[in-house]
Amino acid sequence: MQIKDRIQNKESTIGIIGLGYVGLPLAIRFGEESLKVIGFDIDEHKVNMLNEGKSYIKHINEGNISGMVKQGFIATTDFAKITDVDAILICVPTPLGVHNEPDLSYVKSTLDLVKSHLREEQLLILESTTYPGTTAEEIVPVIEALGFKVGENFYIGYSPEREDPGNKNFSTQTIPKVVSGHTKNCLEVTTALYDQIVDQTVPVSSTQVAEMTKILENIHRAVNIGLVNELKMVADKMNIDINEVIKAAATKPFGFTAYYPGPGLGGHCIPIDPFYLTWKAKEVGMNTRFIELAGEINTSMPNYVIQKVSESLNSIGKSIKNSRILILGLAYKKNVDDLRESPSLELIDILIDKGALVDYCDPYFKSIPNTRKYQIELKSKVLNADVLQSMDLVLLATDHDDFDYDLIEKESSLIIDTRGRFEKSEKVIKA
Amino acid sequence: MQIKDRIQNKESTIGIIGLGYVGLPLAIRFGEESLKVIGFDIDEHKVNMLNEGKSYIKHINEGNISGMVKQGFIATTDFAKITDVDAILICVPTPLGVHNEPDLSYVKSTLDLVKSHLREEQLLILESTTYPGTTAEEIVPVIEALGFKVGENFYIGYSPEREDPGNKNFSTQTIPKVVSGHTKNCLEVTTALYDQIVDQTVPVSSTQVAEMTKILENIHRAVNIGLVNELKMVADKMNIDINEVIKAAATKPFGFTAYYPGPGLGGHCIPIDPFYLTWKAKEVGMNTRFIELAGEINTSMPNYVIQKVSESLNSIGKSIKNSRILILGLAYKKNVDDLRESPSLELIDILIDKGALVDYCDPYFKSIPNTRKYQIELKSKVLNADVLQSMDLVLLATDHDDFDYDLIEKESSLIIDTRGRFEKSEKVIKA
Repeated sequence: MQIKDRIQNKESTIGIIGLGYVGLPLAIRFGEESLKVIGFDIDEHKVNMLNEGKSYIKHINEGNISGMVKQGFIATTDFAKITDVDAILICVPTPLGVHNEPDLSYVKSTLDLVKSHLREEQLLILESTTYPGTTAEEIVPVIEALGFKVGENFYIGYSPEREDPGNKNFSTQTIPKVVSGHTKNCLEVTTALYDQIVDQTVPVSSTQVAEMTKILENIHRAVNIGLVNELKMVADKMNIDINEVIKAAATKPFGFTAYYPGPGLGGHCIPIDPFYLTWKAKEVGMNTRFIELAGEINTSMPNYVIQKVSESLNSIGKSIKNSRILILGLAYKKNVDDLRESPSLELIDILIDKGALVDYCDPYFKSIPNTRKYQIELKSKVLNADVLQSMDLVLLATDHDDFDYDLIEKESSLIIDTRGRFEKSEKVIKA
Repeated sequence: MQIKDRIQNKESTIGIIGLGYVGLPLAIRFGEESLKVIGFDIDEHKVNMLNEGKSYIKHINEGNISGMVKQGFIATTDFAKITDVDAILICVPTPLGVHNEPDLSYVKSTLDLVKSHLREEQLLILESTTYPGTTAEEIVPVIEALGFKVGENFYIGYSPEREDPGNKNFSTQTIPKVVSGHTKNCLEVTTALYDQIVDQTVPVSSTQVAEMTKILENIHRAVNIGLVNELKMVADKMNIDINEVIKAAATKPFGFTAYYPGPGLGGHCIPIDPFYLTWKAKEVGMNTRFIELAGEINTSMPNYVIQKVSESLNSIGKSIKNSRILILGLAYKKNVDDLRESPSLELIDILIDKGALVDYCDPYFKSIPNTRKYQIELKSKVLNADVLQSMDLVLLATDHDDFDYDLIEKESSLIIDTRGRFEKSEKVIKA
C-alpha cells in the first residue's frame, strides 16, 4: 500500500471537503503536523475568507487559520484538485428531511463532484454522522462503479467526527478517534492517517460499527436529556425543583451521570442524528422507541416553556399579546456562537406569533442571522437595569456565563428560568 | 436540641431497624466510630447469627461483625429497646405490589412496632427508597398523632441509602450521603448524625427532594439499561455487535457513559424503585413514559434470550424440550451472592417449563435458595470439560470473573452470550 508509506513518511496531501465546524479544525490539526492540506468547499465566500487567513467561526482562532495559510494551506472551490490529494475527508452536513428521513444529498453531491477526479492509491473517508451501512451501501458502490478495487488500489474508511464546540478540556488531538475501513487494508490506511493527528485511534471491526458508535453517542444524550425533561415536568407538578435533585444525585460517585433539562434540544447532532437510526431500523423491521419518545418530549419543550410564560403572565393579569418579553440567549448552548437548531429561535417565533413584543440579548449575536426556518429581524439589546425594568417578563433560554445574573434577578419583575440558574422565588418561575 | 449535642459528643446510641444489605453496613460503620449501636430485626435467625458474630451476607466480612459485637453491638427482636436509642434508622424493604404499586407495609409495620416506645428528643430517619412525599405524608402524621412536635422535641429525616454490593472503589464511608429533614432543625440533627460516619453529607432543601434524588439515580440506570437493551436488538438485526459499539463509544471522554445490555434487570433497586415515581406521578396527573418504556423493554429481555436459545437450538435441529442447557451465573450481577430479582431465575423457570433439562453453575450459590417467586431444586454443577461437553447449549447469564471463559469457549458446542463476554463466532450467539 503505497499510500500508507506516503502517510507515514508525512509525504501525503490531505483534501478536506466541507470547511465548517468539523472540517476546519481537522484542516488546522493536519497543518499543525506539517502535512499539506487543501480545503474544498462549494461556498466561495468561505473559501475566500480562509485564503485571506480569516475565521468565520467564533471559537476557531483566526491565528490558527492565518498560520495554516502561511504554511501553505489553500482553500478552493475547484474539485479538479482532488487528483492532487492522497486522502479525501468528507465533512459535509447530514441533516434530516422534512419527514425526519436522512438527507444524504450533501454526501451524494460531494461524490458527484469528486468522482471524475479520483485516481488509484487514494483514501476516501466519510466523517459525517450517518446511519449504519451508509459507507458500504452508498459510497463503496460508487467507487467500485468507477473501476477501482476497494482495499487493493483504492481505500475507503469511516471515522465519525466528535467535535464539541466550546469544550475547553478536549481538542481534536486529544479526543480519541474511532476509525474503520471497508476492508482490512482500508482500516490500516485509515488508522495510519489519523495516527498522524490524534493521540489515540480506536479501530473497530467494520464501518457499520463505527457509524453506529457515533449514533449511539448522540442517542445517549438525546434520551438522557429527554428523560430529565420529562422528570422536570413531573417534579414541577410535585413542587420539586429538578435541578436541585439532579445536583444532589450527581454527588453519587458511580452509576449516575448528570444531564440537565432545558427549553428544547439544539445543535446539529442531538436533535437530528438519532432519527438516522430510526429510519434505518425500519428496514429490518425494528422500532427505536426510546429515540422516538425522546424526540417527542424534547420537541415539546418549547411549548412547555411557552405555557409557563402564559401562566406566569396570567397570574399578574397579562396576556402574551402585547407583553414585553426579553429572551436571554440565542445560541443552542451556553458560551458558543452556534445557532443551529436553537430552541430560542422557536421560542421567539412562537411568542411573536402570539403577539408579544419580543426583544433578545445575546453577546454572541448582535442580530439574528437568517436560518432556513426562521427570518427574524431583531438586534441584541444591551443588558442593563432600564431594559430589564421595561420588560413584563424575562425568559432565560441560554445561560451564557457572560450574563450578569445578579442584575437580571434584581431588576426583572418576572423571570422564566429554563436553565436552573436562579433560586426559585416569588418572581422566578422554573420551566 | 439536646440530641444534636449528644450526637456530636459521641454519647448517642443508634438504633438500626432492618439488618440486611443496608442496615448491616450502617451498623458496622457506626460501630467503627465507637458509637453504641442496637440492631433491630423481626427475623430471630438473623438476630441470633449477629449476636454470635456471624455474617449472612457474603460480601460483608465476618470479622467486621464479630468486631462490632465485641465493641458492644447487640441485635434484638425486642422493639421496646427503642426507648434506649437516640437515633432510629429505618432500613426495611420497599418492594412493589403485584400491580407495580408501592408496598410500604414494612415501613408502616415498623412504625407500628416502635411507636409506643418513642420518647422526646429522638431522631427518626427513613433510609428506604421511596416516592417523593413518603416521609411527610406517611411518617410525620404518625409521629404528630403521638403528640410530638416535629422539629421541636422530635426530629424526622430522610437519607436514602446508596449501598452498592461488591463495589470495591466506594464504601459506606466514602459515598457522599444525601440528607434531609422535615424542618430546619430536623435537617441539622440528621446532618450531624451522618457527619459522624461519612466523609461528605449533601443536605437538600426537603425530604421530597431527597426522596426524588434516590429515585432519579435508579431511574437513570433503568432507562439507560433499557435503551441499550433496545439498541442491542436493533443492532443484532443489522448484524452489529452492540457491545463492540458501546466499548468504542466509551472512548469518548465527555458526554457519554457506558451502560451494557443484559438478560434483564436484577437487584432490589433498578427494576423496582422507578415505579414508585410512576405511581406517585398519577396523583398529579402525570405519566412517566421513559420509566414505563424501560420497564417494558427490560422485562421483555428474558423472553428475547429464550427466543435466541430456541433459534440456536433449532439451527442444529433441536428443540428446547429435552435439550440439556447449562445456565452460567445465578446472581443478578457479577461477583456477588445476591439473587434478588435475578433474571437467571426467570430464565431457568421458563426453560424448565418448556421441557429443557436445566443445570446451572454459580460459585456463589451451591444450591438455589427459595425466593418468594421461585422454588427451584438444583445444585450448582462443577464447571469442567465433561460437564460442558455434555450440554446442548450453554447460556451465560451472569459473567462472574471466576468462570474459566477459555474452557467454556473451548468445550461448549453452542453458547448464548448475554453479557458480551465472548467474540462472536460459529458457536457463539449474542443475545
